[in-house]
Parts: sequence; C-alpha cells; structure tokens
Amino acid sequence: MASISSTISSSKVEGTNVYSPSGDKLGSIDDLLIDKHSGRVRYAALEFGGFLGLGSDRYPLPWDQLKYDTSKDGYVVHLSKEQLENAPRYALNDTPTYTDDYGRKVYDHYGSSWWV
Amino acid sequence: MASISSTISSSKVEGTNVYSPSGDKLGSIDDLLIDKHSGRVRYAALEFGGFLGLGSDRYPLPWDQLKYDTSKDGYVVHLSKEQLENAPRYALNDTPTYTDDYGRKVYDHYGSSWWV
Repeated sequence: MASISSTISSSKVEGTNVYSPSGDKLGSIDDLLIDKHSGRVRYAALEFGGFLGLGSDRYPLPWDQLKYDTSKDGYVVHLSKEQLENAPRYALNDTPTYTDDYGRKVYDHYGSSWWV
Repeated sequence: MASISSTISSSKVEGTNVYSPSGDKLGSIDDLLIDKHSGRVRYAALEFGGFLGLGSDRYPLPWDQLKYDTSKDGYVVHLSKEQLENAPRYALNDTPTYTDDYGRKVYDHYGSSWWV
C-alpha cells in the first residue's frame, strides 16, 4: 500500500462528523492543533453538539482516537460515556494553554501515547 | 521551554502569508495535507499570488520549509528563484495523487528529509 495516497486535507477534516461506537452523532471536528516543531497534529478539537447536555465545549482529542468509518462518512471515537463526562474540555472563549502537562493529561485520559 | 505551548491552530496557519527571504510576498498557505496514519502534516499548500507570473498554482511545501517570522507576521521560505520556477506545482482543479513517489520528489526538491 506504500504507493497509495494517504493524505487528507485539513479543510476536509474540519467539519467532519464524529460518532460514538453505537452510532450517535457526538459533534464534529472544529479545529486542529498542530505541534509547530514536528508539524504533527497534537489535538483534534471536537465540538460537541449538545450531546448529554454538554453544550458546545471543545474536547481536544489525540489524533489516533479518530477512526474514519466510510459507512458513516465520519469519525468514530471509542469513548465510553464515563470517558466523555470526565474528559478535558474548554469553552470556546476559554482556550487552554497547551502545555506539556496539559497534553499529557489529555493523552492519559484517552490512553494515547504521548509523543515529543 | 518544555512547558511552553508549542501548538498552532490549523485555521491560523491557513491564510498566513508567505514571504521570500528578501521580503517579497509570495502568496499564502491555502491548505494542509495531513498524513492520515501519523497525523503529521505532509505538505503545506502554498497558493502563489501571481508572483513571477505564475498564476495561482499550488505549491506543496514540506512543513519544515516554513519558518515563522514574527516581524512579518508570516512564514519565510528560503527558496531561490530557480527552486521556485522548477518546483512541483498543480492547478487548483488538478490536485495530484499524493503517492510516495510524488512526495519524495517534492521533498528532494527542497532538500527536506522524507519521513514515513
């Protein structure tokens, strides 16, 4: 498969719907936060669509949590209700400072491997 | 510096001006092409603003070619006129298939290290 294109446009990622494993629409990707040095996406910011009454907070997700599902034309994240309720989040007008400490907390929450 | 935020929003990168080392505005970043597996930006697509009569073709640049210059509030790319004239490019309505072969050609052109 090495010769097949495996890139996706950032403008295509932004706005893509995100679903729970059971098929509920959770929201959509609102933004990508890129590590300046490596050019690697540190977080994909999920905008929740009022799911569970959570309003429209942003949830920073590690990139590897997003699995594209062609049948849904969107990403599926394997998150339990508990993981969602306790997940790091912020209001749109209250963007956090993305320190390493913050990042490790986010990655730990989802069981993703922190990278530097 | 490990505790300082080093992320940037994709929406902030898109639209940022790009300058030559001598300060000429070359155009702006139009899109980011992200490697699906690693989440790493494979190319930043530079939209030329008619510089050298080149029209508005897109030039895929390796991420490490973009050096942010706070005094210009934009990126500076260290490209010679020759590098530009011979650089891989495509018309907006003629997006290439981003195979590995294509990518290596782009990276070689700019002297960037190909990564997998």
